[in-house]
Amino acid sequence: MHMDTHTLAVAGAAAATAMLSRPTAIKDKALESIAARLKERASDIFAANKRDMAAARAAGLDMSILARLDYGSKKLDESIAMLNALAGLPDPAGRVLEARRLDAGLTLRRVSCPIGLIALIFESRPDALVQMAGLAAKSGNAIIVKGGHEAEHTNRILAEAIAAAGVEAGLPESWLGAIETRDEVAELLGLDQYVDLVIPRGSNAFVRHIMNTSAIPVLGHAEGVCHVYVDADADPNMAARIVVDSKAQYPAACNAAEVLLVHASAAPRVLPVIAAALENAGVRLDLCRRSMDILGPGSTRQPKLDDEWAVEYLSLRMAVRIVESIDDAIAHINHYGSGHTDSIVCESGATARRFMDEVDSASVFHNASTRFADGFRYGLGAEVGISTGKLHARGPMGLDGLMTYKWRLMGAGNIVAEYASGSKTFEHAELSPEMEGYHGES
Amino acid sequence: MHMDTHTLAVAGAAAATAMLSRPTAIKDKALESIAARLKERASDIFAANKRDMAAARAAGLDMSILARLDYGSKKLDESIAMLNALAGLPDPAGRVLEARRLDAGLTLRRVSCPIGLIALIFESRPDALVQMAGLAAKSGNAIIVKGGHEAEHTNRILAEAIAAAGVEAGLPESWLGAIETRDEVAELLGLDQYVDLVIPRGSNAFVRHIMNTSAIPVLGHAEGVCHVYVDADADPNMAARIVVDSKAQYPAACNAAEVLLVHASAAPRVLPVIAAALENAGVRLDLCRRSMDILGPGSTRQPKLDDEWAVEYLSLRMAVRIVESIDDAIAHINHYGSGHTDSIVCESGATARRFMDEVDSASVFHNASTRFADGFRYGLGAEVGISTGKLHARGPMGLDGLMTYKWRLMGAGNIVAEYASGSKTFEHAELSPEMEGYHGES
Repeated sequence: MHMDTHTLAVAGAAAATAMLSRPTAIKDKALESIAARLKERASDIFAANKRDMAAARAAGLDMSILARLDYGSKKLDESIAMLNALAGLPDPAGRVLEARRLDAGLTLRRVSCPIGLIALIFESRPDALVQMAGLAAKSGNAIIVKGGHEAEHTNRILAEAIAAAGVEAGLPESWLGAIETRDEVAELLGLDQYVDLVIPRGSNAFVRHIMNTSAIPVLGHAEGVCHVYVDADADPNMAARIVVDSKAQYPAACNAAEVLLVHASAAPRVLPVIAAALENAGVRLDLCRRSMDILGPGSTRQPKLDDEWAVEYLSLRMAVRIVESIDDAIAHINHYGSGHTDSIVCESGATARRFMDEVDSASVFHNASTRFADGFRYGLGAEVGISTGKLHARGPMGLDGLMTYKWRLMGAGNIVAEYASGSKTFEHAELSPEMEGYHGES
Repeated sequence: MHMDTHTLAVAGAAAATAMLSRPTAIKDKALESIAARLKERASDIFAANKRDMAAARAAGLDMSILARLDYGSKKLDESIAMLNALAGLPDPAGRVLEARRLDAGLTLRRVSCPIGLIALIFESRPDALVQMAGLAAKSGNAIIVKGGHEAEHTNRILAEAIAAAGVEAGLPESWLGAIETRDEVAELLGLDQYVDLVIPRGSNAFVRHIMNTSAIPVLGHAEGVCHVYVDADADPNMAARIVVDSKAQYPAACNAAEVLLVHASAAPRVLPVIAAALENAGVRLDLCRRSMDILGPGSTRQPKLDDEWAVEYLSLRMAVRIVESIDDAIAHINHYGSGHTDSIVCESGATARRFMDEVDSASVFHNASTRFADGFRYGLGAEVGISTGKLHARGPMGLDGLMTYKWRLMGAGNIVAEYASGSKTFEHAELSPEMEGYHGES
């Protein structure tokens, strides 16, 4: 049965409320049931994926899309391992984040809880659907997913199997809904009375479109204009190694660096070394006038004549600019960057600290490749997206990004009038959150 | 000099960046300088306030507005005490929230930092301006404030004195900007490239207007439709005491209760006691058919004939509805409530737990008055607003609501290629955030 989008959102919001009271054991059992069901349905899933793969090949889609679309036994095993690993993690809901005795018999606790109904909109990868469903079950959120059109048949059978296995384990009906078309996405983005949050992943244009049209809060990023800044005292070999990895290790990623900034006093010494390493890795350079003067002409070099530095090549091409000072580097990054990830290469700890304090980006690195900005590499277990916004969640978002909190106050008939009149005064004694188990409420 | 709104926002965004590197000592010195300056300028401030008070009296504004507008020596002393208390608190920026050694020589820290440029829009109270300026200086955010028109002269001199004292102590120019007209507010709400967050306080219509028209994220609440639900096993005297305080202790507050829900099986026993106590406190009752049947007619009672339960009286008037079960109570609150604060009165801990789990509001109480939902009563020190949204901050917001975080990665030339190739593997060793001082970065 295919529900219309409005009905799906209403049912999803009701499921989100029902999820609020599902105990940890049910959520973990759901994860295990989903893992078992995927194993049982493996041959159906592989058959659906073969259909998607054949269509993608017929449509002439390129190898990188085919690789991401492929969902065979290796990817299925990884999905199952991921689901079982999630089941073994502590419940992110019900954690006491803060606790305070306001007065005798009056205890306040700030306790983590799921956000509600989240729309997860992404492209192509069927394993992303399984991961997001797993994160939703673990965190206690209801979700509506929209996968890539290319993975239509694979996603349909995955969503069906996962939703049913979850319900059989005790999750509410409609805890996982799926939509398939862009028209359905457009309708969903207007249903802000039901959907609490949208997390989109995909191309710039796609994410920007969602951010501009959604009535619902959106967490994610449209652009990844990342920088490496090489300061005056940098070691040229370390700089070259970091810049090459940041640019060329996987140039299509959002955390790949697009612009190299070099301190003027270091440029004659370090730029030739870095440029040679980049060109050796197949990178073409767009050079500012001063860096062109230092490097001289070459077949992989062209002058950058315009002043548009908010470039996102996503390919083996990099812009290079010489700056007068760390102040200019910071100002450049805060003006042209996307607030995603920026790295400084330098020896001085004080210089690094200043760069990391003043660059207003989600991830700021010292002597490390921008490519480390990723939920798995950060040790978050899984990643639902990377936020370049500054509210709620910033940078790679794992389970924590799917949680909010509420304030729970336990009284014994306490009224404000007694405090307003001065007959009682607040004690405000901090309690240790670790000692204040959720089940300790009384 | 009065800057236009666009210039003010550009200057504020630059100040926000400059604030990022201001050390704790400068911020605390600024708070002390502001306190000293307000004392020095006391006579000018009082004179300006007398002008506002005279105009307000001439305009026939009511006593409650005059009381909030009044800024005499007692309020000034409170402001000064508040500023000095803020100076004594630990710096909310630079706290290590999470730390992990990704591998040898590669350490990741999630560190708190200010959000950036925040617009604080509120009504009438000059002491709120001082409080917000103090919270901004302490948290390291730049702010643009818009106070109530009635307090125009008081706010102008306060803003001037505070901004100048902050700059003299080492805060950047334009760390505090002020606007005065609704046209300026309207323009500011469109400048999302400079302003990170809007926190509005004021009437429903005013806040709703801001939420509906702002291109910038808004934290706050338009409505406070709060409930007290009296369950089957409730003690009638405790219920009466809590309901009267929730409704009548200060009916104009957003955390005052508007609707009383009573379990059908308890109603004949408890409702007459509660109603008598409410009526004794001067509360008029809008009764559902079944509660009217139990209580019978009376001069302070009228039948509630419509089905509009999302009522916000903000006066000595309360709606009463009998529900069949706790499920119905929870469904009623989640449907008609505003997600602000809701309280259950009952003896059973399991029932309370279920209500507090499933009611999807920022504050959920057991056997306590809804009036406790307040930043000061919660022990947050100060309150910049109360959020009914579920992202970033929920319920009363203090200093924490003004903070975000960034991910700081310290490497030694580390590149992703080594991990992608399998020649290195991540260690992901959790470090104790308490042991990981901000200054411990290296």
